[in-house]
Amino acid sequence: MITSESVWQDIATIREKVPLVHSITNYVAMNNTANALLALGASPVMAHAENEVEDMLEIAGALVVNIGTLSDPWIRAMKLAIEKAKSSGIPIVFDPVGAGATGLRNNAIHVLFPSGPPTIIRGNASEINAAAASAATTRGVDSTESSESALESAKSLVETYGSTVCISGAVDYILDGNNTVKVHNGHHLMPKVTALGCTATVLCAAFASVNPSPLKATAGAMATMGITGELAADSDYCRGPGSFQIAFLDALYNMTFEDLRGKLRVE
Amino acid sequence: MITSESVWQDIATIREKVPLVHSITNYVAMNNTANALLALGASPVMAHAENEVEDMLEIAGALVVNIGTLSDPWIRAMKLAIEKAKSSGIPIVFDPVGAGATGLRNNAIHVLFPSGPPTIIRGNASEINAAAASAATTRGVDSTESSESALESAKSLVETYGSTVCISGAVDYILDGNNTVKVHNGHHLMPKVTALGCTATVLCAAFASVNPSPLKATAGAMATMGITGELAADSDYCRGPGSFQIAFLDALYNMTFEDLRGKLRVE
Amino acid sequence: MITSESVWQDIATIREKVPLVHSITNYVAMNNTANALLALGASPVMAHAENEVEDMLEIAGALVVNIGTLSDPWIRAMKLAIEKAKSSGIPIVFDPVGAGATGLRNNAIHVLFPSGPPTIIRGNASEINAAAASAATTRGVDSTESSESALESAKSLVETYGSTVCISGAVDYILDGNNTVKVHNGHHLMPKVTALGCTATVLCAAFASVNPSPLKATAGAMATMGITGELAADSDYCRGPGSFQIAFLDALYNMTFEDLRGKLRVE
Repeated sequence: MITSESVWQDIATIREKVPLVHSITNYVAMNNTANALLALGASPVMAHAENEVEDMLEIAGALVVNIGTLSDPWIRAMKLAIEKAKSSGIPIVFDPVGAGATGLRNNAIHVLFPSGPPTIIRGNASEINAAAASAATTRGVDSTESSESALESAKSLVETYGSTVCISGAVDYILDGNNTVKVHNGHHLMPKVTALGCTATVLCAAFASVNPSPLKATAGAMATMGITGELAADSDYCRGPGSFQIAFLDALYNMTFEDLRGKLRVE
Repeated sequence: MITSESVWQDIATIREKVPLVHSITNYVAMNNTANALLALGASPVMAHAENEVEDMLEIAGALVVNIGTLSDPWIRAMKLAIEKAKSSGIPIVFDPVGAGATGLRNNAIHVLFPSGPPTIIRGNASEINAAAASAATTRGVDSTESSESALESAKSLVETYGSTVCISGAVDYILDGNNTVKVHNGHHLMPKVTALGCTATVLCAAFASVNPSPLKATAGAMATMGITGELAADSDYCRGPGSFQIAFLDALYNMTFEDLRGKLRVE
Repeated sequence: MITSESVWQDIATIREKVPLVHSITNYVAMNNTANALLALGASPVMAHAENEVEDMLEIAGALVVNIGTLSDPWIRAMKLAIEKAKSSGIPIVFDPVGAGATGLRNNAIHVLFPSGPPTIIRGNASEINAAAASAATTRGVDSTESSESALESAKSLVETYGSTVCISGAVDYILDGNNTVKVHNGHHLMPKVTALGCTATVLCAAFASVNPSPLKATAGAMATMGITGELAADSDYCRGPGSFQIAFLDALYNMTFEDLRGKLRVE
C-alpha cells in the first residue's frame, strides 16, 4: 500500500504545489520546522494570535497544533483554529508534546480534541498513552517507552476521535480504524536533536495537504523522516548531532526517488 | 553611488563601533538574526515587553520591527518603541512579514506606520504591495511575485511616509524619493532557508545605525546579503539549505573587501 | 578540587541518569540550549505558563531561569517556579541576561532573588555587576568588561543570597563563600554565537542536578563549555561562527575523558 512510488508521488506533488502549512507550535521547534517544510518543498507560516489564526487558515493547506510550550491564550487560539480548520475541511495534525507531564497539557488535550477531532495525532509512546488518558505518566518530552506500549492507547484514540494515530519511536506505528503500518526507517541520532519529533509532525501536515488518505500521508511522512535521517547519518560530513541536523535539511532538500526506493522499509 | 568601497566602509564601521540593534521580531527569526548581527560585527538584543522597549532604546543604535508572529501586546510594544525611536532619532526598519495574509497584520501596519514612519521598509513584492494597501493578497510569507510588480506600491510608500523602500527578490529594488538602486546579488538557495528575509532586515538596521543615508545603508545591506549568499553557495561545504545557512554565517563573519569588490553587482 | 576525573564523573552521571532540566528561558536561546542539553546527555523541557511551571518541576532535576526576553506574565511564572524549586530542594540556576539594561530586568532580579535565592548565578561581568545593584550599566547583553571587574559584586551576591556566582568571560571566576575557582578554557569565537552564555547556564543546571556542590557543578560545567569550544574551534570543519556552533554540539556529544584530561585548565 505504501510504496516508494506512492511516497515519491506525494513529495513531487508537494514540491509542485508548495502547500502552505500553518503551525501553532512551540517556540523551540519553530525555526527547525519552518526549515524542514522549506526543504521538503512546502511553505511554512506561524501565527498564534486569537484574532489572526482564522484568517491565516483561509490560505492554508494544513494546520499543525503542537502543545510544546503552552499558555492559556495559545490554547484559545488553538481552539479557534481547530474549529475553523474542521469547518473548512483542512487537515489538522496534532502533536501532544509532553502530554501527561502537567495538568495544563492534559486539559488542553481534553478541550481541543473534542472541539475538532484531529485528522492525525503524532507523538511518542508516552504522549500517546497520556493523550488517551491512560495511566501512563510522561517524563518530559523524551519517551522512554517502546512504541508497542502505546498501541492500545492509539486504538482508543482512533475509535474515539476517528483520527489516524502515529506512535513514533524506533519503529513507527501508524493506525487508522482499518490498517496498521509500521515504518522501520530512522537513525539513533534523531532523538539527540531537539524538535525532530515536531518536524515529523509538520511533515505529516504537508503530506496530508496533498494526500486525502491520512494513513498514507502519515506513513509517507514518517518514512521520509526516517530515510532523511539515514541519509544524513550516512553523509560524509555528519560527526554528531550538530552536523546531523544540517545534513538532515540538506538530505531532505536533495531527496530523489532513488534515495527512497533504496531505503524504504515499511510493512 | 554604491561602490564596494562605500559598502566596505559601512562594514568596517559596524565592526569597529559594534552598534546595538534592538529587534522586536518574530519567534522564528530571532536566533538567525541574532547570529547574523554577531557575524556582521553588530550586537543584537531582543526585547518585546511594553514596559521595557523604551528603556532598551536608550542604548540602541537602530530599531527593527518585524510582524512575523504578531499579537496585540506585541503591537502595543511596537507602537511605543517606534514612537520612542522616532523622538530619539533612531532609525526604524520595518519588515511587514506576511502583510496581506490577515487583518491583524494589515491593521498593525495601518496603526504603526503613521505612529512613526519607518526609515526603511523591507519586504518581498507581495508584502510591499499589501503594505501599500494595494489590491494584492499575499500568500503566506513567501512571495511568488516579481520585485518589479511592487514598484508602484513602493513609490506610494516612499511618498506617503518618506521611507526608503526595499523590494527584495531575485533583483532587489531600493527606492527613496530621488533614486532607485538595483542589487543583483543573491542565490537561489536563499528563499529555501527560513528567516533570511528577516536577516536582510536586521542587516539594513545595522547599516542604518552607521550610515545616515537610508538608501545607501539599505543598498549596502542588501548587497552584503546577496554576496554573502553567493560566497556561502560557492563554499566547498555547501550541500543544500542546511549547510548553506551555516556557510552563510561563516562567510558574513569572514567577509573581506576583496570578496565585496569581486562580486558587487549594483546599478 | 576540580580535576578531569571529577568533571568526567559528573558527565558520566548525567549521561546515565538523563536529568530533566526545566528552563524558563528566552526565545533566542531555547533551541540552542535544548540541543546542548541533549548533546551533553540531559533532557530539556521548556514551560513558561503560570499554571504549568509547578507541575513541571515535579519531574525536573534542575530549574533554569533566564531573563533574556522578559514580560510580566513570565516574571510571575518565574516566581512561582523558583518558590516551588526552593521548597522541593531543586537547584535553581539564574541567568541575569541584560541585567542593567532596563528597569524591567532590574526589577525582576530584585523580586526574584529574594523569593528563592539562586543556587547558582551565571552572567558576564556587566550582568553580575548590575545584578548586585552596583553602579555599572550594561550595554545590551554582550559584556565589554573583564571578569575581574565584577569580583566585588559577585562576593556581595554570595554574601547576600548564599549563591555560588560565576562571572563568565575570557577567564571564568566561580565563587562561593569559601573558594574561588578560575576556568581558563574557552575560545574567542564563543561570543560570536548567540546564546552560548545561556548554554553555559543550562550546563550548570545539568551538572547541579547530579553534583550536590554548586561550586563543583558550576566549575565542571564551565570547564566543559570551554573545552567543548576549544574542540569545536580545532575541528577540521570549523570555518567561522556558523560551523563553530555545529562543531560545538558535535564535540559536546562526542566528549571523552581523554578530551577533558588533555585540555582542562582550572585553578
